[in-house]
Amino acid sequence: MDFRDHIRVISDFPKEGISYKDITTLMKNGEVYHAAINALVEKIKPWQPDVIVGPEARGFLFGAPVAYALGIGFVPVRKPGKLPAQTIGETYALEYGFDTLEVHADAIKPGQRVVVVDDLLATGGTMLATANLLKKIGADVVGLGFLIELTFLNGREKLEDYPVFSLAEY
Amino acid sequence: MDFRDHIRVISDFPKEGISYKDITTLMKNGEVYHAAINALVEKIKPWQPDVIVGPEARGFLFGAPVAYALGIGFVPVRKPGKLPAQTIGETYALEYGFDTLEVHADAIKPGQRVVVVDDLLATGGTMLATANLLKKIGADVVGLGFLIELTFLNGREKLEDYPVFSLAEY
Repeated sequence: MDFRDHIRVISDFPKEGISYKDITTLMKNGEVYHAAINALVEKIKPWQPDVIVGPEARGFLFGAPVAYALGIGFVPVRKPGKLPAQTIGETYALEYGFDTLEVHADAIKPGQRVVVVDDLLATGGTMLATANLLKKIGADVVGLGFLIELTFLNGREKLEDYPVFSLAEY
Repeated sequence: MDFRDHIRVISDFPKEGISYKDITTLMKNGEVYHAAINALVEKIKPWQPDVIVGPEARGFLFGAPVAYALGIGFVPVRKPGKLPAQTIGETYALEYGFDTLEVHADAIKPGQRVVVVDDLLATGGTMLATANLLKKIGADVVGLGFLIELTFLNGREKLEDYPVFSLAEY
């Protein structure tokens, strides 16, 4: 299945010049959504993860069903102030300004094998920050899986320390 | 399984006097998370939904795996400005001020049977706004499922037009 057939491309969102990849058309089709999750699971299973991590909010849409399908736990990485217990943060640079991600300090046991799942690999900045954050709490980040990859942004270069795959390239 | 054994209660979050129910401890345990999704699926399946809807962001954590398990589509309800195509909105009152939820205008075909899944039933305000929003785009809202219910807030009264269940009551 070519998942690109089910991803809607929207011009000039969220700002002019950006060709936005809309995953909601893929997700509302039960057969296609199921196939996408199964394709992620098939790639991730050989990495033998103990837990799946997904960054807020679209990472939840793919990471959570992958964790369910594998029968393993899911850990959310969230924006500041959303997680109620003790957190560890990682601040990273954006095109203009900075952003911070947080995870519960006790979310992952030291040495646990972790795979991070997100909908989109663009510049790789958010994913690198997520991987760095997980290393801070002792996780063994064994791979990164994406539904979509914007190859012209060379996000894989930033993530060269990790195995990376995607299901749909643009 | 009593899911309350795996939900962490945190005092005074996000503000003083609130006893916050932390679902991350349930989710990071693969066996318990899997059982919770299966328990939601077992309750929802008899309603014969065509699609599952989940409100951003914690609704994604339970709604998306339920949709996957049932082999049906998932539609996200999001905060303003997040969805890229034409949206329909619903504004509702909070304790102080207002909030708005959005869904893609073409997310659901008129007459499709929809079940909404969220992590928490508190006052019911967010869920009622979600159900109203879905009716605007022609959905047939056939039921509402929650992981947790704060029964002392009487959210079910606000949702009396719909079948409602929860897996863990406080």
